[in-house]
Amino acid sequence: MNNTLHTEMEQIVKESLGAVLPDEAVKRALKEFRPGKGRTVMIAAGKAAWQMAHAAAEVPGLVDEGIVITKYDHVKGEIPGVRCFEAGHPVPDENSFAATREAIKAVEQLTEEDTVLFLLSGGGSALFEQPLIPGEELQEITQQLLSSGADIVEMNTIRKRLSAVKGGRFALSCAPAKVFAVVLSDILGDPLDMIASGPCYPDASTCAEANEIAARYGLKLSGQARMLLDQETPKTLSGVTTKITGSVRELCEAAAASCTALGYTPVLLTDCLSCEAREAGSFLAGILRTHAKGARKKTAFIAGGETVVHLKGKGKGGRNQELAFAAAQGIADLTNAAVFSFGSDGTDGPTDAAGGYVDETTMAALRAAGISYNDILQNNDCYTALQAVGGLIMTGPTGTNVNDVAVALLGAGEEE
Amino acid sequence: MNNTLHTEMEQIVKESLGAVLPDEAVKRALKEFRPGKGRTVMIAAGKAAWQMAHAAAEVPGLVDEGIVITKYDHVKGEIPGVRCFEAGHPVPDENSFAATREAIKAVEQLTEEDTVLFLLSGGGSALFEQPLIPGEELQEITQQLLSSGADIVEMNTIRKRLSAVKGGRFALSCAPAKVFAVVLSDILGDPLDMIASGPCYPDASTCAEANEIAARYGLKLSGQARMLLDQETPKTLSGVTTKITGSVRELCEAAAASCTALGYTPVLLTDCLSCEAREAGSFLAGILRTHAKGARKKTAFIAGGETVVHLKGKGKGGRNQELAFAAAQGIADLTNAAVFSFGSDGTDGPTDAAGGYVDETTMAALRAAGISYNDILQNNDCYTALQAVGGLIMTGPTGTNVNDVAVALLGAGEEE
Repeated sequence: MNNTLHTEMEQIVKESLGAVLPDEAVKRALKEFRPGKGRTVMIAAGKAAWQMAHAAAEVPGLVDEGIVITKYDHVKGEIPGVRCFEAGHPVPDENSFAATREAIKAVEQLTEEDTVLFLLSGGGSALFEQPLIPGEELQEITQQLLSSGADIVEMNTIRKRLSAVKGGRFALSCAPAKVFAVVLSDILGDPLDMIASGPCYPDASTCAEANEIAARYGLKLSGQARMLLDQETPKTLSGVTTKITGSVRELCEAAAASCTALGYTPVLLTDCLSCEAREAGSFLAGILRTHAKGARKKTAFIAGGETVVHLKGKGKGGRNQELAFAAAQGIADLTNAAVFSFGSDGTDGPTDAAGGYVDETTMAALRAAGISYNDILQNNDCYTALQAVGGLIMTGPTGTNVNDVAVALLGAGEEE
Repeated sequence: MNNTLHTEMEQIVKESLGAVLPDEAVKRALKEFRPGKGRTVMIAAGKAAWQMAHAAAEVPGLVDEGIVITKYDHVKGEIPGVRCFEAGHPVPDENSFAATREAIKAVEQLTEEDTVLFLLSGGGSALFEQPLIPGEELQEITQQLLSSGADIVEMNTIRKRLSAVKGGRFALSCAPAKVFAVVLSDILGDPLDMIASGPCYPDASTCAEANEIAARYGLKLSGQARMLLDQETPKTLSGVTTKITGSVRELCEAAAASCTALGYTPVLLTDCLSCEAREAGSFLAGILRTHAKGARKKTAFIAGGETVVHLKGKGKGGRNQELAFAAAQGIADLTNAAVFSFGSDGTDGPTDAAGGYVDETTMAALRAAGISYNDILQNNDCYTALQAVGGLIMTGPTGTNVNDVAVALLGAGEEE
């Protein structure tokens, strides 16, 4: 093990995660929040709603009243002036609808002096919902879409029109009050009309598209649902400010800042990595090999996003562990080189590790442990191998999920 | 088609290839050649031997006499003062051995005032060979190694010891004359003891390793061969200068220079890319997506090396075409973005194209042509698709092979 690089990795992981935890992320976003002269009503929806609301409520005098709508068992205590509701996820239930009705009630009487602080996180699509058709019919239509093979964009195009809050409609309920929306992002590339189906974001999809999708998949719809498909969603929204926070971009930037503090020159390659995990690992190893030649400065290459693994074996692992493991061979003859990757939620695949770490000593350590590199890759068994050589990154669940980040470190060269 | 980027691509391809063609590459390397006071004998071996020798002979007064050993049909005319031999490749034959004997004769009487200009290119391993055992026995041992599953390093460790010229031994024949070796590289990462088994390069492998390999695969060896395994190859060589030229590194540098001339800031990612072609394309598209955001300068990301394709379909294509094609989807909603990749030999896979080009308009062009993006990828049929949308890069055979280079261009942003 290269102890210097391993210690630096631990620091980078800790600092990167700290920056994207809901508390930090919300507080950073709120620095740009300018409330109006009137009341401020906070509506928080999603899996991280309680934590986001808790962080906002800690800012003195910011919020006059609030509502939290989150998953069952996700309310961690009382927040003064805030009513907390728990509801169904991933399938919305009557509690989702009832809590969302309360949120609409809380905002629809506001004046233009007032402000809505809207805190949105993953899972908001199910938790924050008020259908314009009976709940059972909505579930039935969702089921038809799922079994027809419709993609997520097509599903949302239909569902936005069957909802009183999706596709920018919640912002209409808030008007004339201003809206400051803080979005804790866990969707690659941050398409704001996709996150929780964009309650406060103008909708790009059209009635014509919705009808075409209904026809393409032969959806069975009631007369009311059919009529709703023809009601357009807002294409522009005034008085709404949206601030994305805790995104994979911020995770990358936090990793870069942490690397800088350790004397590395950070190079952000991408924040929307989406290729096969092991191939990304190979690519990163190739980058290190090239930059390890000749005179060199300490450099950190950063790639955020979410890779995929096409499982072939029955071993234990996750995409981050596989990415790191796949880089081990390519860096084995370098000096002071490491590749690591971790998920911001702290759980990589079905394992208790957040990710994996390798350096130039890993291949030798695997050989010493009698572990076949190729067999491990073939069997998608990186957890087992990394565990044997001290290459697992353990953080425990973090309470957020803004994708993954991979870091390839090139430490000081031999001559230094 | 984005005509600006397509035109720039054509210029980058042309200039990059020009820089690594044997003529240019040899002449560049020869700028560092300082002959001694005595005679200069040129020995050129490999598939590009005639072209390399021809380029060197064009420098007035440089060479006193020379020998060319190349593949059948690769001698393109007379070179004054140079004897040209054609021989067997990839399997060495009696002509290989006879020509190599002539080369040894030409250098072994030289004095320390004299210089050997040794020009080496791919294929030299078979063309430049003088076995220390009968030719049939060498072939038989090679066959045993091949069928045992031995890798190329193991094969070379054995074969170097059975040869009078491999593993640095040709340099011993040249001594006390100085050697200036110019190596036209087509092996990733340029391991000089691997290119043509390193006739003028110190050998890192040992007799112990050779014996271990013989034991591991149960090689059947004659008494003479067994004795040869115990004769060590030179571990150091004095008086030898080696200059690698026309390598993938130079291909990348030439591409970078060409991009700079077009106003791009070049970023060399790697010169030893070796991952799956389509995943490299996805990674490059992700890099462009990230850097397309916000204020931007014209940037060119460069990745050289040799990707692989695991064939699943029966379509027509090559690794460069597949890399580029796989990037098309990820850049479809950008402005002024292109990804292209080409092989320096001018033939990508079993096609007449050198590589492929896509830009932000490619997905729309494919749709307009009624071509399914996913079907093409699934069927490894990128040639067909790229041909339909004008995305093939055609150069014709170039006469060299220093791997591939992929370039991801981010042109001027909309605001400019």
